[in-house]
Amino acid sequence: MARRKKVYEGKAKILYEGPEPGTLVQYFKDDATAFNAQKKDVIEGKGVLNNRLSEFFMTGLAQIGVPTHFIRRLNMREQLIRSVEIIPLEVVVRNFAAGTLSQRLGLEEGTPLPRPIVEFCLKDDALGDPLVAEEHIIAFGWASQQDLDDMVALALRVNDFLSGCMLAVGIKLVDFKIEIGRIWDNDFQRLIVADEISPDSCRLWDMETGQKLDKDVFRRDLGNLADAYTEVARRLGVLPSNVTPASKPTLIN
Amino acid sequence: MARRKKVYEGKAKILYEGPEPGTLVQYFKDDATAFNAQKKDVIEGKGVLNNRLSEFFMTGLAQIGVPTHFIRRLNMREQLIRSVEIIPLEVVVRNFAAGTLSQRLGLEEGTPLPRPIVEFCLKDDALGDPLVAEEHIIAFGWASQQDLDDMVALALRVNDFLSGCMLAVGIKLVDFKIEIGRIWDNDFQRLIVADEISPDSCRLWDMETGQKLDKDVFRRDLGNLADAYTEVARRLGVLPSNVTPASKPTLIN
Ligand SMILES: Nc1ncnc2c1ncn2[C@@H]1O[C@H](COP(=O)(O)OP(=O)(O)O)[C@@H](O)[C@H]1O
Ligand SMILES: Nc1ncnc2c1ncn2[C@@H]1O[C@H](COP(=O)(O)OP(=O)(O)O)[C@@H](O)[C@H]1O
Ligand SMILES: [Mg+2]
Ligand SMILES: [Mg+2]
Repeated sequence: MARRKKVYEGKAKILYEGPEPGTLVQYFKDDATAFNAQKKDVIEGKGVLNNRLSEFFMTGLAQIGVPTHFIRRLNMREQLIRSVEIIPLEVVVRNFAAGTLSQRLGLEEGTPLPRPIVEFCLKDDALGDPLVAEEHIIAFGWASQQDLDDMVALALRVNDFLSGCMLAVGIKLVDFKIEIGRIWDNDFQRLIVADEISPDSCRLWDMETGQKLDKDVFRRDLGNLADAYTEVARRLGVLPSNVTPASKPTLIN
Repeated sequence: MARRKKVYEGKAKILYEGPEPGTLVQYFKDDATAFNAQKKDVIEGKGVLNNRLSEFFMTGLAQIGVPTHFIRRLNMREQLIRSVEIIPLEVVVRNFAAGTLSQRLGLEEGTPLPRPIVEFCLKDDALGDPLVAEEHIIAFGWASQQDLDDMVALALRVNDFLSGCMLAVGIKLVDFKIEIGRIWDNDFQRLIVADEISPDSCRLWDMETGQKLDKDVFRRDLGNLADAYTEVARRLGVLPSNVTPASKPTLIN
């Protein structure tokens, strides 16, 4: 393969220059990190699963008219994406209390929220991605009021869609995080969903058993992370063809 | 069972007075009709399946904050619902061309639409539920401009959610129809999703084969309607426990 330029290497993905201007190649690594990279491991197969799952969700979103950076999958670990100017905010949508919301507000994990809550966190590892209010965002110019309104609308549409996806396969969408970026169509700015949508960026609980099928399995040492992600992919019918499911079918009769 | 008053009998459902003011019991019949009831049949099990499926979708919608009339399922064929004042418009959301849109605009069935299209049809069997524009709706007072804006917003949220549900189980949501009703919380009017959401009111195509899994199977004599609806329910994990799937699992190994 021709040499290509690495644009950025993050905790879970690498960005390379794309074949055409305005594109990037997004490579999904097997690296897992948590607590701002204090906890690290390599989870074989995670990158392959997330590449597929992010493709699956972004394609579905595009079909209902939610714009995303996804162009096409290139191979097991890579997808071609539109290069965007990332808005430096993590957009979190929560349907049930968990994680930092539970901690900060003293809510038991799993408590249903009165309505979906959209939070913004400043994307800054050194600061631990702190929660910010609209007030801070406008004051510091990270996004405009119009951007914020558009981001909330995008995030809620993603929530409606993803909630449907998950409900259909017996999974509770507790919360998720997306990143949003700006692109320019001539002189008009548009916001599109970027980064990834995968069990790395969602909290997914089995509806029946409550079993966690997301990165909390890694964060909290609850078992094999790749098995959990494989289960999500299997239920959604997006298992890469050359990844063999961990368990064989069991004969019941 | 105590005698109860029939409030309305329609083509597919019967409404009875509910146990409390403001409630109704919605009974799902096995009757199937098409082409404004020119074609009729009884499809054993359809009512049971639609009762379950409508419960499934309405419960999922409620969880993401889309208000619906569903209160709880009472038995195999009945659910308790909030009584609403139905807005006399069928709200149709289309993602791909099919049915009357294909006919009227000369679009091949399955053509992707530039974006989801929301249509309103006057709910009037005698007139064949004719398409109407906002202009007619406002002029004749069937709904206000505010109602229309709210209805479009509701319909698009249902589309986002249902598209997700269907994508997750390998089904393409071609289009669907909902009815919307008014309720009063003190002096405030709110609009909520009413009637039913089921394969009677959606076009559902298998993603791989294009096989129809909706009422078109009946309209166009494409096979057994109950089998098609059972397949949708099976994929979504909502098969009523005492309905046996048509086919036994096949041993592969
Ligand atoms: N379409 C895109 N265009 C430009 N940058 C993107 C796009 N999608 C995601 N990114 C950025 O690429 C990086 C993805 O790598 P990741 O390993 O998640 O990084 P990080 O450790 O910074 O979270 C993130 O910084 C993310 O903001
Ligand atoms: N929550 C509700 N409150 C009052 N009426 C309702 C509610 N949900 C649905 N309806 C009405 O009940 C009837 C359902 O029966 P159906 O067999 O579909 O009738 P139709 O043949 O008129 O379509 C419809 O007329 C519908 O508008
Ligand atoms: Mg990241
Ligand atoms: Mg009806």
